[in-house]
Amino acid sequence: MPRILPDAAIATTVHSFRVRFFETDLMGIVHHANYLTYFEAGRVEWLRRRGIKYSDWTASGMHTAVVEATTKYHAPAKFDDELACATTLVEVGGASLIYGYRLTRDDTLIATGQTRLACVDHSQKLTKMSNEMRAILLVPEHAK
Amino acid sequence: MPRILPDAAIATTVHSFRVRFFETDLMGIVHHANYLTYFEAGRVEWLRRRGIKYSDWTASGMHTAVVEATTKYHAPAKFDDELACATTLVEVGGASLIYGYRLTRDDTLIATGQTRLACVDHSQKLTKMSNEMRAILLVPEHAK
Amino acid sequence: MPRILPDAAIATTVHSFRVRFFETDLMGIVHHANYLTYFEAGRVEWLRRRGIKYSDWTASGMHTAVVEATTKYHAPAKFDDELACATTLVEVGGASLIYGYRLTRDDTLIATGQTRLACVDHSQKLTKMSNEMRAILLVPEHAK
Amino acid sequence: MPRILPDAAIATTVHSFRVRFFETDLMGIVHHANYLTYFEAGRVEWLRRRGIKYSDWTASGMHTAVVEATTKYHAPAKFDDELACATTLVEVGGASLIYGYRLTRDDTLIATGQTRLACVDHSQKLTKMSNEMRAILLVPEHAK
Repeated sequence: MPRILPDAAIATTVHSFRVRFFETDLMGIVHHANYLTYFEAGRVEWLRRRGIKYSDWTASGMHTAVVEATTKYHAPAKFDDELACATTLVEVGGASLIYGYRLTRDDTLIATGQTRLACVDHSQKLTKMSNEMRAILLVPEHAK
Repeated sequence: MPRILPDAAIATTVHSFRVRFFETDLMGIVHHANYLTYFEAGRVEWLRRRGIKYSDWTASGMHTAVVEATTKYHAPAKFDDELACATTLVEVGGASLIYGYRLTRDDTLIATGQTRLACVDHSQKLTKMSNEMRAILLVPEHAK
Repeated sequence: MPRILPDAAIATTVHSFRVRFFETDLMGIVHHANYLTYFEAGRVEWLRRRGIKYSDWTASGMHTAVVEATTKYHAPAKFDDELACATTLVEVGGASLIYGYRLTRDDTLIATGQTRLACVDHSQKLTKMSNEMRAILLVPEHAK
Repeated sequence: MPRILPDAAIATTVHSFRVRFFETDLMGIVHHANYLTYFEAGRVEWLRRRGIKYSDWTASGMHTAVVEATTKYHAPAKFDDELACATTLVEVGGASLIYGYRLTRDDTLIATGQTRLACVDHSQKLTKMSNEMRAILLVPEHAK
């Protein structure tokens, strides 16, 4: 199946959340490993806004496993900060997906990142995406 | 099946470990939720010293789910502290277990705790312990 | 300073949130240590609804350290569940607080818990609460 | 100060550890965010083997903040796996460090990664490394 590069304008979802106390470390800022869980929450919300419950996928044995993750940390996030994560589907392959992330606090850029995901089954075996699934990934956000 | 109260002298295992950086919070000390994961590691090591790999149990569909947990925090633990966790099997019921924990840094008492666990299958349904399993729980630590 | 037992009717705040993927474990349910972080988020929201930013307190060197925590796990929570946490101030002492928690998914009781907190400064030294602080703790939720 | 590329033969430290239960997720494997905490533990151990306690640095107000992190996930790690993390200092700049990581289970490659760290003070302000600190980073592991 051919690689698809979605239009960023319709392939982006923004969700907001607050930094929790336990996400901080002794430097007084958010520990860097937590950003990957923020991006993950971004993907779940991205799917939800397009009518997909990721928990239905996992219950049916379909997973999207992270095979590569990159994060650049631009400015520290702090406890109780209200952050916005813009999650964008960047590329759709035959059995893989690439998402990009841009994390901000008001006008301050906190972090950017990218993850490549592989479609796998319960036993982590690579699985081709169905045409139905690819089609769902290319629709814009539903009206909320 | 009758309740059994094991002899603390043979029912205790001590394991040591270091506090990791990400386990701290902005107070500069270990975040209180992490102690439950230290106790959990204590149970896994307790079983290992008696010839049981908990991962074999979970792979076979047998789990011991925490149904009640209590922790008292006596003194803060800090990054890179070397802590010792003494894990003691306190009580064995027909489908449940109680473990107690005593966490120290040298002579300083850091925390104490207790967890009650229920024997459940993959779908979290309560399951009686076999006589074989109960017997294993009552042997002392193997020579290392 | 005398112990105060607030009226539960005005001393309760409910906040809702979704279970994140990383909070699950290989049993397919939320790992038990995460509930303490849900309760912690409950306390932060409880204060916010009464006009207090806990991050202002921590920035000023005032912390409320958990000295005892108890959780009872009634039913498993799952990935993407929308949970409601009712956080109630149960008791106010001279330098301590007790909060209770009731976590539900619609009509299902997921967990209950209680934490005792001590008022401490940056170096974890016990510190009496000011009358001003005690007074703030006894006001009802502001209109949102 | 000039960029230094240390000799990999003397700039590598291997430490072993077990996967904890809470590090798994509902796919039954280690959640991908945890690898960053494994790498972090690798850096702490790397310094310890060269006579440096990172906790002394943080207590003195010196931090090495992660400013970029990349991880490639080759094969899933599972609960109770005994993993080896080879941590290598790749580059030393005037106020920054690059470490590489190679995580294995026996002969199986689990993950590789790289992090760039900036030397910062308590308020996250960039700080030049002293010549003394640069010198310490270039010594081989002490005999254990």
